[in-house]
Parts: sequence; C-alpha cells; structure tokens
Amino acid sequence: MRKILVIGSGKSTSYLIKYLLEKSHEEHLHIIVGDINIQNARKLINNHENANAITLDVFDQSSRRAAIENADIVVSMLPARFHIEVAKDCVTLGKNMVTASYVSDEMQKLNHAVTEKGLVFMNEIGVDPGIDHMSAMKVIDNIRDKGGKMVLFESFTGGLVAPESDNNLWNYKFTWNPRNVVVAGQGGAAKFLQEGTYKYIPYNRLFRRTEFLDVEGYGRFEAYANRDSLKYQDVYGLNDIKTLYRGTMRRVGFSRAWNMFVQLGMTDDSYTIDDSENMSYRDYVNAFLPYSPTDSVELKFRHALKIDQDDIVWDKLEELDVFSKTKMVELKKATPAQILQKILMDSWTLEADDKDMIVMYHKFGYELNGKHHQIDSTMVTIGEDQTYTAMAKTVGLPVAIATLAILNEVITTPGVQIPISKEVYNPILAELEDFGMKFSEKEVPYLGYNPLNV
Amino acid sequence: MRKILVIGSGKSTSYLIKYLLEKSHEEHLHIIVGDINIQNARKLINNHENANAITLDVFDQSSRRAAIENADIVVSMLPARFHIEVAKDCVTLGKNMVTASYVSDEMQKLNHAVTEKGLVFMNEIGVDPGIDHMSAMKVIDNIRDKGGKMVLFESFTGGLVAPESDNNLWNYKFTWNPRNVVVAGQGGAAKFLQEGTYKYIPYNRLFRRTEFLDVEGYGRFEAYANRDSLKYQDVYGLNDIKTLYRGTMRRVGFSRAWNMFVQLGMTDDSYTIDDSENMSYRDYVNAFLPYSPTDSVELKFRHALKIDQDDIVWDKLEELDVFSKTKMVELKKATPAQILQKILMDSWTLEADDKDMIVMYHKFGYELNGKHHQIDSTMVTIGEDQTYTAMAKTVGLPVAIATLAILNEVITTPGVQIPISKEVYNPILAELEDFGMKFSEKEVPYLGYNPLNV
Repeated sequence: MRKILVIGSGKSTSYLIKYLLEKSHEEHLHIIVGDINIQNARKLINNHENANAITLDVFDQSSRRAAIENADIVVSMLPARFHIEVAKDCVTLGKNMVTASYVSDEMQKLNHAVTEKGLVFMNEIGVDPGIDHMSAMKVIDNIRDKGGKMVLFESFTGGLVAPESDNNLWNYKFTWNPRNVVVAGQGGAAKFLQEGTYKYIPYNRLFRRTEFLDVEGYGRFEAYANRDSLKYQDVYGLNDIKTLYRGTMRRVGFSRAWNMFVQLGMTDDSYTIDDSENMSYRDYVNAFLPYSPTDSVELKFRHALKIDQDDIVWDKLEELDVFSKTKMVELKKATPAQILQKILMDSWTLEADDKDMIVMYHKFGYELNGKHHQIDSTMVTIGEDQTYTAMAKTVGLPVAIATLAILNEVITTPGVQIPISKEVYNPILAELEDFGMKFSEKEVPYLGYNPLNV
Repeated sequence: MRKILVIGSGKSTSYLIKYLLEKSHEEHLHIIVGDINIQNARKLINNHENANAITLDVFDQSSRRAAIENADIVVSMLPARFHIEVAKDCVTLGKNMVTASYVSDEMQKLNHAVTEKGLVFMNEIGVDPGIDHMSAMKVIDNIRDKGGKMVLFESFTGGLVAPESDNNLWNYKFTWNPRNVVVAGQGGAAKFLQEGTYKYIPYNRLFRRTEFLDVEGYGRFEAYANRDSLKYQDVYGLNDIKTLYRGTMRRVGFSRAWNMFVQLGMTDDSYTIDDSENMSYRDYVNAFLPYSPTDSVELKFRHALKIDQDDIVWDKLEELDVFSKTKMVELKKATPAQILQKILMDSWTLEADDKDMIVMYHKFGYELNGKHHQIDSTMVTIGEDQTYTAMAKTVGLPVAIATLAILNEVITTPGVQIPISKEVYNPILAELEDFGMKFSEKEVPYLGYNPLNV
C-alpha cells in the first residue's frame, strides 16, 4: 500500500478524501488523515478500511516528522501560513508535497533544495488558484501552438450561492471564509492593464468599476478587479499583452450595494470599537454617521450616501436588519469589519439544504494571421450539500488528482511549482471533466476595449 | 556665558535663533548651532558675537556627545525620529532638553531616568503640538478653577497662506512639508466624540465631513477631523467630556476639491507607478480612470466624480493644469502621492514675497451652576517673509522661551513632559503675547451638537 498523508480535515477536504478513498483499492492507497481535532477526519473517512485518522499537531516537531516519514506523499490542507514546517520536513525526508495555497516566499526559497532532491512540490492546485491556472494555460498554449499572439486575458472567478438557493436580495451567501469577503479588496489599489495602459483603482472606487459577464444558462454576473491582476503576467508568459485583468464575480447589483459599507468605513479591520459589545446594530451604523439629536439613523444614512427613496439598495440594507435597535453586536472590542461580518452572517449563512456554486470565466484575445480573435471559456460547478460543496469539489479534486498523478509518476518535473505546464494540466483537466468540471469554450468576436480600433 | 546647543538649522529655527541671540547679552548666553550642513546656520547667526555654527552629524556618537557635554541645555530641532540618540546622551550627561516634536514611545521610556536625575525634557512645545496645548490648558484650568465642568472641547489649527498672498482658487499654498499635506488623513479612520458617542470617519469620507469656523477679521474657514481626536483626552483630564474633536483648518471649498484626488486614488503613497517618469500629467490622471479609445480624460473625470459642467471644482483642477499633455511627471518609480505633490508644487509654492499664516481656534463648552457656557478662543499669526514665517515664529518662539525658562529655573519640575502645567504655560503664553501671539477669547452661547437638548 502507498501511504498518502493528508494534513487537515477542514471544509475543503471532503471531496479530496472521498476521491482518494474511492481510488484506494485499484491504486493500493492507504490514506492517513491528520488533524489536531480528529472528529471531522473520522466523519470523512467513515470507517473506510484503507484509511485512518491520527491526531496531529503540526507544531509538535517529533510527531509531525514521524507522520511525514511514514508517508509516501504529503498533502497539506492547513491554512497557508502553516505549510512551511511541513514543507521543510518533506525536503529533509525526501517526500513529495501538494497544497492548494499560494506559493509563499518561504516556500519559493525551498525550490533549490526541492529540485536538487528531485521532489515535486505542487502548489496553487485548488480552484482559484488552481483550476484557473490550468484552464487558462491550456487555451493560451493552444493559441500559441497555432501561431497566435495573446493580446488580452481576463479571468474571473466567483464563489456564490447556487441559483436554486439564491433567495435574498443580495443574491449572495457566505460559501467560504466570511472574513475574506468582508475585507476583500483592501490593502492597496487594484492594478491592471487595459489596451497597454496601467490602470489603478483605489479601494473606495473598486465596487463602482465593475464589468458585466453573461454565462449561458446562468444569466448575468458582475466582477470587480482583484488587487494585483499582473501577478501571473510573467509566469503565464504574457509580457507583451495589452489587456490583463483578473476579477471576482458577484451577481449584478451586489457591488453597488456593498459599496455603501465601504463608503461609510464599515469594512475597516484596522481598529477596534471600545464599547462594541453593548451596541445595537443601529448604534454600530450610527457610529459612521454625523451626530444629530433628532434626525434618524435612516435619514442620515440616506443623506450621507445620497440614496433615493426608491433605490433597491435600501431594501438590501433593510433585509440585513442593520437598523435594528434590539439586535446586539455582543462582540467585545470588535473591528468594524468583524461587526459587519456578524450582521451579515445573520442573513447570509447557508441553510441546511442550500447549495453553493463556483463560476469561472476567462476571455482570451489574440492575433492570428493579422486578425483579432477571441475565445470565451466558462465553467460552472454546483455543490451537492454543505459537506460536498462546489468549493470543496473544485479545490479538493485537483489536489487529489495531482497527488495521485505525482505518486504514479505522471507528473515528474521536480521543483516548487504551480500547475501551468502541459505535463500537469492535461491529465488533471481531462479527469476533472469526468467530474463535470468542463469548460465551455466559444469563439466570439474580438472587441477588447477599443472595438473600432481608433 | 551659558551655552545653548541648538541641533538643526532648518526652516523652523529662524525665530528660535533670533530670539536667543537677542537675549544673549542680558542673559549671558552663547548659542551653538550644530547642523550637518552649516550654510543655513551661518546665515541665521549672521556673525553674531555670542554664537557660532558647528558641523554636527548626529549619527557620529563622539562628536555628538562632545557637543552635548559642552552645552548647558540642548534644543533638538531635528526631524522627530532623530531625537532619541540626543536624548539618551542628555540623560547620560545630565543636560536638560527641549523639542517641538511629539513624545515618541522611546522618549517616554526615558522618563524614569530623566526624573531620577532631576532633568527637564520639554517636548511638543511648538505650535501644534505646543501653543495648542498651552492655550487650551490655560482656559480649561480657568474653567475648573471657578468650578466649571468641561463638556465640549474642539480644537482646530491651520497652516495657510496669508490673506494678502491668497491668490489661487484653492486659497492654499504649501507653507510647510508638502508631503504631509498630500498624505494627510491616511493610515486609519478619524475617531472623535460627539455628545457622548464615538464617531468614525474613513479616509474616503474625511474631506466631506467638514465643519465651518468663522474668525473675526479673517472670514470663514473649514476643518476636517484629525485622525485621533482622543489622543490628549487623558492628559488634559477630559475623561468625562461629551464632545472632543480636533481638526485641521483650510479655507472653505478646499476639502471638497481635494476630495477629488482622494476619490480617484491620487493621494495613495503605498505603491509606485512603473513608467511614471515618461508620463504627462494627463497620463497620470488617466491612470485612475477607465480606458476609452475615444472619450477624453476630462469627460471621464467629470463622469467618474459626477462633476457638473459649472462646478467651481473644475476651475480648481484646470488651475493646476492636471490635464496637460506636455508637462511631464519626470519622477522615476514615483507613488501617486509623490506625483500629485509635484503637480501641486508647480502651483502652490510660495512666491518670494508671499506670507504664511497660522490660525488656531478652540471651543470650550462647560457647565457651571447648572448652566451651559461656551468660550471660543482664536489666534492668527502672519509671517514676515519666507525666512521669518508664521510657522517658524509659532514653532520657534515657544521653544526658545521654554529653553530660557528652563535655564533660568522658572520651569523646574523634572521629567519627560509636554507643556500642560501652569508652571510651564503661564510664563510662556505671557511672553508670546509680547510677540503678538495673543488669543482672543469671547463668551458665546453654548450650542454643542444638541442645542435644543432633546
């Protein structure tokens, strides 16, 4: 039996473990799931004969090392900041490793040692990052192989609620870490390229500079720019590209409404409010509005943001009950963002039978034989339930498939890497199609941002 | 002769040195001005018999110590971050010290050693901080002495251009460090108290939540909130106060126009623009606006910020020539804030005969015998020329007067301190009046923010 150590058994591991267990007989696998709290690991393993759960504290060096030494390959599904100690042990002990996280500077520094030892350290092989890299590079490589020259690449991903569970005015529920949603876009201007010019959007304008995207069968979405659209310009080989934009998808109207919170400072996570535990939701909102002995919080809110009496954003606010005098914040010394998160979780937490949805949309513009062309590529995945979510599927399956491909020496090129080579993305994308994660590609007229070419 | 070492001979030292030289005969003073570059020191000393300039590199420990050892008292007019090594030497060598800077954590940590040795380390004794502390505490102490209870304290300071030199549409010129003006208000939400409730304003709303202030003889001003109005709540003994607000003064209309730059992200100092040196001013502005092959930068700007065709803010923009195709940024790898500063310096640099102006406005609300009262206190100082500026006068004279008062043992209470005790502010404020820095106090009806007391 070949032993696969999976460290962490959180939300994103359900499909990963399911896949490996289903393959365990034909592939002679034994799956060891290590977590500091093994309740969830046991539930996911469900007494499968080819698996066992172990209590694993990644900060306890000797037990961590023993578990890694005992494995043939290690999958770390821990939060990104905890990978590095596991990674160093994998180098020392000569084990391949897989993560779904961004390559940290520390991880990148291991590249020389990893390559020397002929090891494969595959990272960013979840959904975003992960499926986005693979599906984009496949089309980009195809375009290049037929002699085309990339002029535009735009890529959008959204973690949303499935249409059948989409029953609030925001068309949004939390399908992943709510905190990341509340603070999304903070920490610096968004940067991207449009027709050869760099463009910058500060946080306070980010949610008012959206683009529309139509996905067949799913209707219209909008997208706001990610902080650094240029991050993969080099890695993807797009240094001469004219337009490069990466964004986050929401249903149309979300961003305009969300912008109210941004404008008033309610998403700020950089300071705490002293008496937050004794505030009502209404007191919290009022802290961002001028004092008045007589005017209502509602009217001050409408005036501050110039919200017309019949604007739909107002209904969205009321749906969240942000003006409640009786609902209490209860959090001690909380930041504005933490309080907003609590208010939103009252309304945006998935119900027991709600399903989530992952949507991805790429646009590839290229020149071939003097003409401009465009390919649009889209993928939609819907979850089954709250354990087997679309998020867990799109994160966990690429990780699982990559793990087995490394174990079976289908993927062999050593180094700290991300899935952008044919050797990696071809087998993985092919197998993902068997699980319904298929990109729908179509040729569309090239428009870019200068359709008349003036 | 008693020796005073003044370290630094920058913009704010002209009046400081002038005052000490004028007092040097009757007070038996010898002034040593140390700077790494002694050109300006020599100019300010102007061959006075009781002074000399020395080359002093504060990072060269032995020469720094020798200079301090040779002095009876040390005045550090260096940028705030350079005080600490001087301060440590003063502790070791048993010398009193004066600065106009905020007390850093490092400086505060010296308090025990300073007090043990019976030394006086006077800080924050310029204009803001400095004259604001003294003039406010004098009124607050008076109110308390007659049995009043403070309910409101608002304090505003502005470094502006004098009315006779106020000849641009912004009613503003750079009279101090331009960089501080461009990045003012960044780094976190403004926090203050209004009628017992904490209020928070994010940066992107800061310049739209101004207050008006009328100063007799000088017309109307506006003020935006400083980042932390609560900083001196404890120190001033205002823990039960209902309203506490500190702000920065501008002429009316400045903030609404400045807000255009804030909204578009042009004041951001957190990232650099790659090809900035080859940009025209117009290219720079365009980087913050959506791409269009045909629409003008002007129309995109108007549309983004919803600026009406006849809005005066547009004339303010045009006055700065921000849409110029021929004026070049020329700065390499500059931040948006650095580029904006350059554009503004084209228009806002003082002319040779321009004068500056310092305006200060305090409001004190208090309860006495069951009734509410209010005192408004204002001070305006106008500069003489570009060496003897209002800024140099209001910063340098309190420093100079305090230095002599410490030397003459008028101020004796030891410790790392700021000028909030009667021992300190009474003699200094009295002498400042001789130099025309007199506060005009008047009783006004108490309004607060809840005039009808509902």
